[in-house]
Amino acid sequence: MAAKRTFREVARHIIFDSTTIPSKLFDLGLIGAICASVLVVMLDSVASLHKLYGGPLYVLEWFFTVLFTLEYFLRLYAAKSRVRYATSFFGLIDLLSILPTYFSILYPGAQYFLIVRFFRVLRIFRLLKLMAYVREADFVTASIRASGRKIMVFLFFVLVLVSIVGAIMYMIEGPENGFRSIPESIYWAIVTVTTVGYGDISPQTPAGRFLAALLMITGYSIIAVPTGIVSSEMSSMRGRSSRSRSCPSCPDVVHDTDALYCRVCGRRLSGTTKGG
Amino acid sequence: MAAKRTFREVARHIIFDSTTIPSKLFDLGLIGAICASVLVVMLDSVASLHKLYGGPLYVLEWFFTVLFTLEYFLRLYAAKSRVRYATSFFGLIDLLSILPTYFSILYPGAQYFLIVRFFRVLRIFRLLKLMAYVREADFVTASIRASGRKIMVFLFFVLVLVSIVGAIMYMIEGPENGFRSIPESIYWAIVTVTTVGYGDISPQTPAGRFLAALLMITGYSIIAVPTGIVSSEMSSMRGRSSRSRSCPSCPDVVHDTDALYCRVCGRRLSGTTKGG
Amino acid sequence: MAAKRTFREVARHIIFDSTTIPSKLFDLGLIGAICASVLVVMLDSVASLHKLYGGPLYVLEWFFTVLFTLEYFLRLYAAKSRVRYATSFFGLIDLLSILPTYFSILYPGAQYFLIVRFFRVLRIFRLLKLMAYVREADFVTASIRASGRKIMVFLFFVLVLVSIVGAIMYMIEGPENGFRSIPESIYWAIVTVTTVGYGDISPQTPAGRFLAALLMITGYSIIAVPTGIVSSEMSSMRGRSSRSRSCPSCPDVVHDTDALYCRVCGRRLSGTTKGG
Amino acid sequence: MAAKRTFREVARHIIFDSTTIPSKLFDLGLIGAICASVLVVMLDSVASLHKLYGGPLYVLEWFFTVLFTLEYFLRLYAAKSRVRYATSFFGLIDLLSILPTYFSILYPGAQYFLIVRFFRVLRIFRLLKLMAYVREADFVTASIRASGRKIMVFLFFVLVLVSIVGAIMYMIEGPENGFRSIPESIYWAIVTVTTVGYGDISPQTPAGRFLAALLMITGYSIIAVPTGIVSSEMSSMRGRSSRSRSCPSCPDVVHDTDALYCRVCGRRLSGTTKGG
Repeated sequence: MAAKRTFREVARHIIFDSTTIPSKLFDLGLIGAICASVLVVMLDSVASLHKLYGGPLYVLEWFFTVLFTLEYFLRLYAAKSRVRYATSFFGLIDLLSILPTYFSILYPGAQYFLIVRFFRVLRIFRLLKLMAYVREADFVTASIRASGRKIMVFLFFVLVLVSIVGAIMYMIEGPENGFRSIPESIYWAIVTVTTVGYGDISPQTPAGRFLAALLMITGYSIIAVPTGIVSSEMSSMRGRSSRSRSCPSCPDVVHDTDALYCRVCGRRLSGTTKGG
Repeated sequence: MAAKRTFREVARHIIFDSTTIPSKLFDLGLIGAICASVLVVMLDSVASLHKLYGGPLYVLEWFFTVLFTLEYFLRLYAAKSRVRYATSFFGLIDLLSILPTYFSILYPGAQYFLIVRFFRVLRIFRLLKLMAYVREADFVTASIRASGRKIMVFLFFVLVLVSIVGAIMYMIEGPENGFRSIPESIYWAIVTVTTVGYGDISPQTPAGRFLAALLMITGYSIIAVPTGIVSSEMSSMRGRSSRSRSCPSCPDVVHDTDALYCRVCGRRLSGTTKGG
Repeated sequence: MAAKRTFREVARHIIFDSTTIPSKLFDLGLIGAICASVLVVMLDSVASLHKLYGGPLYVLEWFFTVLFTLEYFLRLYAAKSRVRYATSFFGLIDLLSILPTYFSILYPGAQYFLIVRFFRVLRIFRLLKLMAYVREADFVTASIRASGRKIMVFLFFVLVLVSIVGAIMYMIEGPENGFRSIPESIYWAIVTVTTVGYGDISPQTPAGRFLAALLMITGYSIIAVPTGIVSSEMSSMRGRSSRSRSCPSCPDVVHDTDALYCRVCGRRLSGTTKGG
Repeated sequence: MAAKRTFREVARHIIFDSTTIPSKLFDLGLIGAICASVLVVMLDSVASLHKLYGGPLYVLEWFFTVLFTLEYFLRLYAAKSRVRYATSFFGLIDLLSILPTYFSILYPGAQYFLIVRFFRVLRIFRLLKLMAYVREADFVTASIRASGRKIMVFLFFVLVLVSIVGAIMYMIEGPENGFRSIPESIYWAIVTVTTVGYGDISPQTPAGRFLAALLMITGYSIIAVPTGIVSSEMSSMRGRSSRSRSCPSCPDVVHDTDALYCRVCGRRLSGTTKGG
């Protein structure tokens, strides 16, 4: 337990674990650096800021790239299985987050691909796990996963609906009213059924407007379906976890909140006070 | 069971059933062909693609039309009752999906009606049934059907609301602000109450904007109604199906999911494992 | 029961009741006439249709006005309390639905107020009651009424929110970006928080866009509140009505769905089969 | 109890309490004055009204400022701890609501900061407490607080999503299609995912429209998550509070709403009337 550990073991512990103070600090610092580097890429994309602070932002970009390069090689060195890390989702993202800056020396413009660095922000969800939010995140993702199939069926229905309505609208309105092709009409149908409604394409003929109105009301009503799925899933999950009285001998038996004795072995339940 | 079957019987089994491997493969292949032919119609509607690949797309269109013609006659030949198939929804769709290509020889432009082919994609829901999604789809459709009447009442209320608000807006704003007629104003009210909000028509006068704001807040709040209907319906359906333990002697007694013994006669419940 | 009734009693029964065949037919015919007259007003508002069919539509308008005038006087004659009917909501709507046509002889343009006739369509909800939809409508309205206060509190919060955000946006963006006054900015905030998003007014400055993004995310999230209120209300109402086992001696005692004996007097419950 | 009280005690009671008639009247009058003064600021911001009624509105502004100044000093005088009131949220708001008018003598334009007065409207929530709405408001805020963490996790996911999609859209569409910088693209992504959809920025390329369609469908579906969270939270809170019958000897046993006798000790429950 308190045995002497090699530098590689210590590094691995700090980088890949998140249970002790040093590894938590490392994660926190890393997230900070990622957010800062993402901010640099963001601000550099604003033309007016690029003109004013292009120089310092360029220096910061190189600073973060060198930092992340060092971190990448440290991870590669410390990983239990180097091949597995290098080919994992985050391993590839880590590599792709540093390459564009180097390529931009040879090919100007390559630095735009630094946008891939945004995906590193996903690591922040790991940080969330460190904090008390973990149970909430688990609850939310578990209920989404549980209702995933039902939502797939729903999305599939929406997809068929917008295809048919899009195709009909292409015939009704035609290119002269902005519905220039069937894919574009399907795009319009998605914009409408999800109630986004940009208004860049909108029906002009009475027949088209009538069909559009039907599609809007459909979209407005069927949003109830995924919501109902997730709501009922969450209610059922909550119901299971809220019945919390437990029997010392039968830990996996669930009791009603007002039960006094275990319904399987008859022992008095923990957390109950003497009554009657 | 293993009796010799005529070609018609085999064909009928493959085309109309979906329980054995060959019939499942046929369904899968058909869905693939339908999707591909729909994609051809879609791409051909894009002006730039039509100019570049109009020839190959034309050939593909004829290929799929001939394929679906053969399939149609095969279905007609194999169907138990030919008249019933030919006059069924899918029978008519199947016919209408192939006719436009033939008519387009005589009347150029008729091929646009190939759009009807999109409805064949609805067969994909049958394919879904083959897969594990069937129970999820059943759950979703059953709960929508159960809450259908309540949603009808809700949609009816929305319809009366948009009619009245649309008529008042026509008086307030008038043709000079884009509300050119009562039907158009009702179209605007639907666009607003469903929170789509294209912005092609929008109120300009203070009174009109006040009424529009009221309508928006109404639409934003009453979406809670269909959602509540479907949510409570799904919760109740889930509740019914999740309590599934049954006692051999007392079939109509409902047991908690963790009960080991019948609460009425004391017999061990089916589907329980030994516990503490 | 089969006693001789005066004409006034028969008329009152047909017009105001809706339990026998003749009174149901009267209601159905009336709703038909109302919808037709509303359609005439609608179509007459479309400029192109007015030019083509202005004459016949004018004749139809007078036909329906005379018809509704006769109906109004018949109602006034048959009503149990004439003053109460004449001053009731529907009594006033009935009167206001016929006056504009007569006034339009003296003051051309008065016929636009025929729009008030749209409110007569509300009678259709009475027709709904005749049909099997009555229970569904009752369920929906009861749960909305039950959650009305909570939704008022929510709407109040939204109102305060849009006032504050609207006022701040007026300072940030100002008249040069379309936010010409605080009421107009509040209108924009309502358009945004309800996710309608016309786009006729939209923020241009970075600060304004940041605040707008916050408002959008707020609006997108808090829609969960009224939906949650109505959902839980409906679930609770459904729960109460689904427990339907009843005891012959204690009709107001609610029993669990698997109870065999009344929990108050011990009698066997109706609708249970022998178990165990 | 009926002891002689100093003027300061009486003033403190009227201003800070809200249990007796005089203090309720004071609160009501204050809210009225706040709303009126906010209305004055609002109307003065409308250019056409400012031209016509600029004079009277200016007088009213000074009237309310003097009134609120007196009220501020009265509060300061009557407060139990003057420092605590002066540094509290409402204390600062009260001060900031009167200062701009005085500053506007020296620096014309300062009166725009009167907008801070809108925050005083928040006091209206205290007025709501006086009325029967208090329990409803408590229920709503309690269930939002209970689900706050889960909604934070959800909003965090939305934030990461719009950052990534915004960055990708900046690369796909670029400045020539209105996506002038990454922050602006993220703003567009928020407008889209929340289904607001102004349409001031909208994708033009097929790839951009495809990604936008994915984002819309995502936004349309994931609204189910916060709604589900709040719905299930409210259902669970309602369940807890609706079971309210209590046994004098067994205070922690929960009884059904129609139970007459304690299910543990058999004593008659409080709040029950004699039945069968």
